[in-house]
Order: sequence, then C-alpha cells, then structure tokens
Amino acid sequence: MASQTEAVTTAHEHSSPSVNGFSENKAEATTAPTPKKRPSKYRHVAAYHAQLRQSSLSRDSETTPSFLGFRNLMVLVLVAMNLRLIIENFMKYGVLICIKCHDYRKQDIILGSVLFALVPCHLFLAYAIELSAAGAAKQTVGRQKKTVEEKERDQQAFRSTWRYTALLHSLNASICLALTSFVVYFYIHHPGIGTLCQLHAIIVWLKNCSYAFTNRDLRLAYLNPSADPGLPEIYSTCPYPRNVTLKNLAYFWMAPTLVYQPVYPRTASIRWSFVAKRLAEFVGLSVFIWLLSAQYAAPVLRNSIDKIAVMDIASILERVMKLSTISLIIWLAGFFALFQALLNALAEVMQFGDREFYTDWWNSSSLGGYWRSWNRPVYLFMKRHVYSPLVGRGWSPLAASGMVFALSAILHEMLVGLPTHNFIGVAFFGMMFQLPLIALTAPLEKMSGPQGKTIGNCIFWVSFCLVGQPLGALLYFFAWQAKYGSVSRMGV
Amino acid sequence: MASQTEAVTTAHEHSSPSVNGFSENKAEATTAPTPKKRPSKYRHVAAYHAQLRQSSLSRDSETTPSFLGFRNLMVLVLVAMNLRLIIENFMKYGVLICIKCHDYRKQDIILGSVLFALVPCHLFLAYAIELSAAGAAKQTVGRQKKTVEEKERDQQAFRSTWRYTALLHSLNASICLALTSFVVYFYIHHPGIGTLCQLHAIIVWLKNCSYAFTNRDLRLAYLNPSADPGLPEIYSTCPYPRNVTLKNLAYFWMAPTLVYQPVYPRTASIRWSFVAKRLAEFVGLSVFIWLLSAQYAAPVLRNSIDKIAVMDIASILERVMKLSTISLIIWLAGFFALFQALLNALAEVMQFGDREFYTDWWNSSSLGGYWRSWNRPVYLFMKRHVYSPLVGRGWSPLAASGMVFALSAILHEMLVGLPTHNFIGVAFFGMMFQLPLIALTAPLEKMSGPQGKTIGNCIFWVSFCLVGQPLGALLYFFAWQAKYGSVSRMGV
Repeated sequence: MASQTEAVTTAHEHSSPSVNGFSENKAEATTAPTPKKRPSKYRHVAAYHAQLRQSSLSRDSETTPSFLGFRNLMVLVLVAMNLRLIIENFMKYGVLICIKCHDYRKQDIILGSVLFALVPCHLFLAYAIELSAAGAAKQTVGRQKKTVEEKERDQQAFRSTWRYTALLHSLNASICLALTSFVVYFYIHHPGIGTLCQLHAIIVWLKNCSYAFTNRDLRLAYLNPSADPGLPEIYSTCPYPRNVTLKNLAYFWMAPTLVYQPVYPRTASIRWSFVAKRLAEFVGLSVFIWLLSAQYAAPVLRNSIDKIAVMDIASILERVMKLSTISLIIWLAGFFALFQALLNALAEVMQFGDREFYTDWWNSSSLGGYWRSWNRPVYLFMKRHVYSPLVGRGWSPLAASGMVFALSAILHEMLVGLPTHNFIGVAFFGMMFQLPLIALTAPLEKMSGPQGKTIGNCIFWVSFCLVGQPLGALLYFFAWQAKYGSVSRMGV
Repeated sequence: MASQTEAVTTAHEHSSPSVNGFSENKAEATTAPTPKKRPSKYRHVAAYHAQLRQSSLSRDSETTPSFLGFRNLMVLVLVAMNLRLIIENFMKYGVLICIKCHDYRKQDIILGSVLFALVPCHLFLAYAIELSAAGAAKQTVGRQKKTVEEKERDQQAFRSTWRYTALLHSLNASICLALTSFVVYFYIHHPGIGTLCQLHAIIVWLKNCSYAFTNRDLRLAYLNPSADPGLPEIYSTCPYPRNVTLKNLAYFWMAPTLVYQPVYPRTASIRWSFVAKRLAEFVGLSVFIWLLSAQYAAPVLRNSIDKIAVMDIASILERVMKLSTISLIIWLAGFFALFQALLNALAEVMQFGDREFYTDWWNSSSLGGYWRSWNRPVYLFMKRHVYSPLVGRGWSPLAASGMVFALSAILHEMLVGLPTHNFIGVAFFGMMFQLPLIALTAPLEKMSGPQGKTIGNCIFWVSFCLVGQPLGALLYFFAWQAKYGSVSRMGV
C-alpha cells in the first residue's frame, strides 16, 4: 500500500504549493506538476494522511532528526542572558570603570622595573657558567689519543665539573627567583605588577634549568663521541660547544618556549602585519578583560564577602555560579590573548617556527588530556626535564606524574599567593587535586563511544572552569580583603 | 627535513610517556618503543621543537580543530546560569507555589463543562446535514439512464444542495464558535479554563469546515462517476456516501487531525504502555510548566508592570530578556507536552497511524519553514482547505498565503484575546508580522552554504522565541493587570 499512496501524496505535495511559503512556490513552479493527478476539481479530498508515520522525536522513529537548530538557540540564549545581566549591572552600579581610581604606587613600579632589569644579569651569569664548563670540556677533548684509563678520568672530570656547574646554576637561578619572590611578597603592593614580576622570574628560572640540563647532556655527548651520538639531527647545524654564545642564550630568553635547544625550526621572514594584528588582539583582549573584571567581577566579589564571612552555603554557591560565567569569559579571553595572540606575535618577531603553544584542550575528555594540551611550553618542559628523567631513573609513571604536579603546584602557589600576599595554599591544593581528577577521568577518555568522552569533557569544564577558577578567585579575594580591607582590583 | 625529524619527534612522544597522564602510560607501554632511538642517556636534549607548526586557532593552520567541547561548555553554562537564577529566586521570593491560592470560580467550571457538552450536539447537527445531502445525492444517482440534459439538471441540483448545505454548516459551526467565544469573554473569568474552552471550540470549528468541504467534493465525485475519479486510493474501502455515519464522524472528532478523510491509515493495535508513558509525560510536563510559571514567570511579570507603565525602555528590555528564557522553556515544554506526548497518546488510543504532528521545526532556516513544520495539523488544514482551493481559483500564492495568515491571525487572537478578556490585537498583528519575516528569511533558506541557513535559523529563534513570545505575554499580562488589578496566574 505504502508505495503507491506515497506517490500520490508526494504528487499532491508538489502540485499544490505549500501554504505558508512564498519561498517554496517559485522553486516548485519550475518542477512541472505530475501529469497524472490534476488537483483541479477535488481540492478538498487530498489524502494527507496516507501512510503510517512516526513523530520524529519518538523512539519508534527510524531516523533521529538533526538538532543543529538547538545549538543556535543555545548561543542566542547565552547572548540574551548575558546582555540582560549587563543591563541589570548598569542599572544597579552605573559605570564602575575608572582609570584614575587605580592604586598604582610609585614604589611598585620602580621595584618592578629593577626586578625586570636584574634578569639579564642572571642570564649573563648562566652564560658565564656554561662558557667555563664548555672550556673545560674543550680542553678534555683537545687531549687526543684516548686509553680506557684516560676515558675513565674524563668521566670523573665531567662529573665533578657537572657538580660544580650544577651548584652554580642552582645558586644563580634560585637567587633570582628568591629575590623576586621576596620583593614581590613584602614590597610590591599591587597584585597585577607583582604577578607580572613573579611570572617573569618563574619563566626565567625554568629557562635557566632547561639551559643547564640540556647543555649538560650535550657536553656529555661531546665528551663521548660515537657513530650515533643520539642527538637530534636538527642540532647538527650548531654542535656543542658552538651553541654556548650570548646570542644563542638571548634568543632562548626571548623565544616562546621553556625548552632549550641549540637550534630551533625558524621561519624565513618576519611578517610585521601578522605581528601587528596579534598585538592588536592582545591589547584589545587585555582591555576587555580589565573592563570585565572592573565592571562585573569586582561587584560580585565585593558582594560575596559578607556571605563567606557568615558561611551562608546557598549564597556562596549562588556567588560562585554568578562568578563562574564572568571568570570563564575572562579565562577564555586570557588564554586567547596569551597563548594565541602574544606568543604568536613573539614567535613571529623571533622567527620561531613551532607555534604549537596549545592543542585543542577544549575537547579534552579527561583532566590528563587537558594538562597535556592547554599549555604546551610548560608541558614540554615538565616532560623533558622532570618526567622523562625520573622515569629513566626507574620511577613509576605515577610517582613521576606526582612529582610534576607537586612542582607545578608550588609554582602555581608562588604565582598566585605571593603577589596577593596570601600564601593560603588554595592554588597548591587545587593543582594537587588534579591527580585524583585525572585518575577519575582517565577511564572515561578510553571508553569507545562518544558518551564517555562527553562526560569526561563535562567533568573537566565543571571542575576547572565553573567551580575551580571562581572558587579560587573568591578565596584569594576574601583573604586579600581580610588582610587589607579594600582592594582596587583583583590580580588576574 | 620535516619527515625525518617528525619521525624522531613521534618516537620521542611515544617512548617517553606523557607527563601528566597515568592514563596514557599503560596504552603506550603496549606499543613497543621504537628500537632505533633509545632515549636512555641524553634525556634532556630531545628536540621537541623540530618542525614548523601553526597554532590550531591561527588562520595559517591547515586544519580547523573540532569545537565540540564548547558545545558541552555552553550546555553547562546554561545549566549553571539557570541554577543560579533558581537560587536567587528562592532567596528573594521563597516558595510561591500555592494550590489553594488559585482563583477557580465555581461558575467558570460549570460554564466550561456546559460548553464542552454542547460540542457533540453541534457535531450531531453536522452529521444530520450531511446525511440529508447524501440522501439527495443518492436519489440523484438512483435515477439511471442519463442524458446531457439530465446531467445538466443534476449539476444544478448539486449546486443548490451545496448552497443549502453550506449555509446550514456555516450556521451550525459558527453558532458553536460564537457562543463559546461570547461565554468565554463575558462569563468565564479564569484565563486557563477560558483557553481550554476556546481551543476546543476552534478545533471543532475547523473540523466542521473540513468535514463539510471534503464531503462536498466527495459528493461531487459521486455524482460524476468516471474511470479516474481523482480520489485517493485509500478512500476506496469506504466510498461516499458510506462514510456519512455517526461513528465515522465521531472518530474524526477524536482523531488528532483537522483534515477529514473517510479513511485514515490505522495501526493494528493499541499499546497501552505507550499511552501510559505519553500521558505521564504530559502530566509531568504540565506540572513543570505550572511550577515554572508560578515560581519564575509570575514574579518577573509582576515586577515589570511599573516599568511598562512609565515606558522605561532599558527596564522593559531587561524584563523581556529575563522573561525570554522562562517563556522559551515553557514554550518548548508545552510543545513537547502537546504535540509529542498528548497527540501521540491520543493517536495510539484512536489507532491513528500518521503521527507526523511536527517535523524538525527547530532547524527551520526561515519563518516559512517554521510555520510549515511546527504544527502539521493546522498546516495541513490550511493547505487543503484554504491555500490550495484559492490557488486553484487563480489567486496568486502570495495572496493565498496572506489569506491563510489572516485567518490564522484571527484564530490566534481569539485564542489569546478572548480568555484574557483583552482583545488588544497583539496576537493578530504578531501573526500578520510573520509575512514580512517570511519574505525576509526566504532568500536565506535558499542560500547554498550553511551560513545563510544559520542566520535564518537565528532570525527565527530571536523573532519568535526570544522576543515575540515574551513580549506578547508581557503585553497581555499588562492589559490584564490594567483591567483587573491582580492575577493569580497567567493563562498559557
């Protein structure tokens, strides 16, 4: 029955243009109406119900309809809800943005500049240390004709040189970091300036470590020449010790990476228009973030102080949720500004070829996947200089991962706790809390269907962006308020 | 260069398990490390930056990454934002749901019951009219041996019979509708009960029209027998006038369609578990809608009265936006409750086979597409009994569409304006406003790329669900308040 009646229905559907669409009429006019069935005389009898059909949302339905329209609806509802909150915010607070109100102290700026200026000195010291180590190695290699005894002695010489070098490097790098931390914690009031100084110091510390470790291994390979030295081919254009130059180190300092290599893949030229666009993005997003935190985040934070003080759980939950959207937008904008705009601009100026500063972390179906993909520079550093060596020494992957997260947790707490003058350990424990979350979400990532991955992805977003970040911000803000009473702006 | 160094990098990525994931270690342990490159001695030298790569969000990047994770994020943010609003609402208003506070008047319920009871009487009259017309037709056909003259006389007889029948049907159907409208507008205070009565009356009126028109054409075909009568094959099991029975009409009254057919596709049996599930869905969603409107929509509507009164545009905009999310959820729940749950339950009980009460209207890329797909029963009625006949008489598709929307606009205004006792024309002009919107979005639907369709879909959602519905609700609520001062509940 179905096939014939279906043909009739289709003929009708085509010959009588649809009710509400002028749109479809023209299109249908070009397709000639079926010749057999003239709908002329008996227009009111067409059998529109001629076959068994299921509602498309029923489980009996053979095909699942597309839900693409609901994606558009979600975007629109999010826009509408946030536009409403913007209007509400203005009606409630008016314009809160005020450049002059900002509490920049002269001392902060002077101290910050001094700290920035000190960094090249430490780098110069690192260079001097490596230069002397390279000199010693050159002397060793200079002595030709090797016996087994001589080789043994060379090894010992290398080890003692390394001990000496390592000590000097540690002293140099740690003094730089310790000094900055001390000044930021005790003398720089403004959390923004403090964060910048502290961030720079941590980056240089990591670079220093990578420089020392890499040169150590390169020196070792240099002292033990063999047919297959086990060094990457890309390094062959600049073999040890020719890489130990001030220019090479300066390039590493400025390059958007924490992993030292004598040679990096380089681009042929600098596209200044590219640089300009990326910098414009960075500046635009920075202003956007500043406006957002001054106009939206600040009042929410301020309104939550009383609620935290009396531990009103429902209100704290409400505040965290209100904050979560804003902090999420700030976070996403900050990610894009830093990892896409700024690092790409820097890479272009430095003709640095490897721009994989992140991969698609937003699709992470586990916390582990997230930490491997969102911040590739730090990830690569940890992988090369902490995880791999520890596993090489026989540590279990679990213990090595724990070590990586412990180090990362300390650095995070330094980055957040020192500039806000509250070493309260939230950032530290937040990072350490990643380990159970990683263990929890790892099985989901490996599930075959898309469902496990979706659940893993949702756990990532909720734990990290919707709860973790705003709760952390709230706690540091509360600690700041408890210590200083008032704040002009929350450090990012 | 790239291919070789890439191999090296990949080898490294695989041999040294990734930093932060225990998750990946086990999987990698099973894939044997590449034999050539032992990462044993020189762990700190791996060339992680060995090739030119682009950031995945850069325009230079060859592949666009998937953004599936952001879809999950959108869902989570929507949930979080609305959870927050729920908490805020409870902190502000407490529990507003109150069954006893409901202003049900005894008179409303009695009058509503009487109106419902009157409908079968009108249907019986419609049956009597058709029965007498069929009797006359039978007599005409009974007289055999036809000359041309006799045929001419039969045609005239048919036309006069039709005029007579049409007048009686019009009187019968219109008295039923007019009486209900009059009682609902003047004597039924509660907008919910009024809406139910009015909806039932309009449905029966439409069914009456369809019954009269269809039987007219069937009679015409009966009086002019030919080899190809031009009737759908499905009708052959119940040819005119055998379909004019009380049972047949009663089935049409209860069946979930507005288009009369002597025969419908039927299912073999009634699955009572299916009916129970659909009814449970309907009841559950109805309660959900009631809770939502009492707890969330009512305060928003109440708070907006002052703002409309003083025409504060920013505040009205804010109220419309706040209302839009709630009205959207109510609308979606209502759609599902009515078109998926209730009509499917009814169809199952009636063994009605064609369950296509809607198609995927949420993907509509034009307003025209939306009106063709969201409410198939009304669409099919309009197409068969208004649009097609008018186009058949030589009307332009544009004019015929205009007629359809004008009729629809009148029915919408009756459905909303009468039970709320405010014939303010918002529903009428809202429907008429669809015509320019359809014309505007029609070109978008026909664009080849997905972009035009997405824009069209967004225009549909914004115009219909985010602005049209809440604005309409606000205006009718305001009119109600202006007339009665206080309201226990807004009629849906």
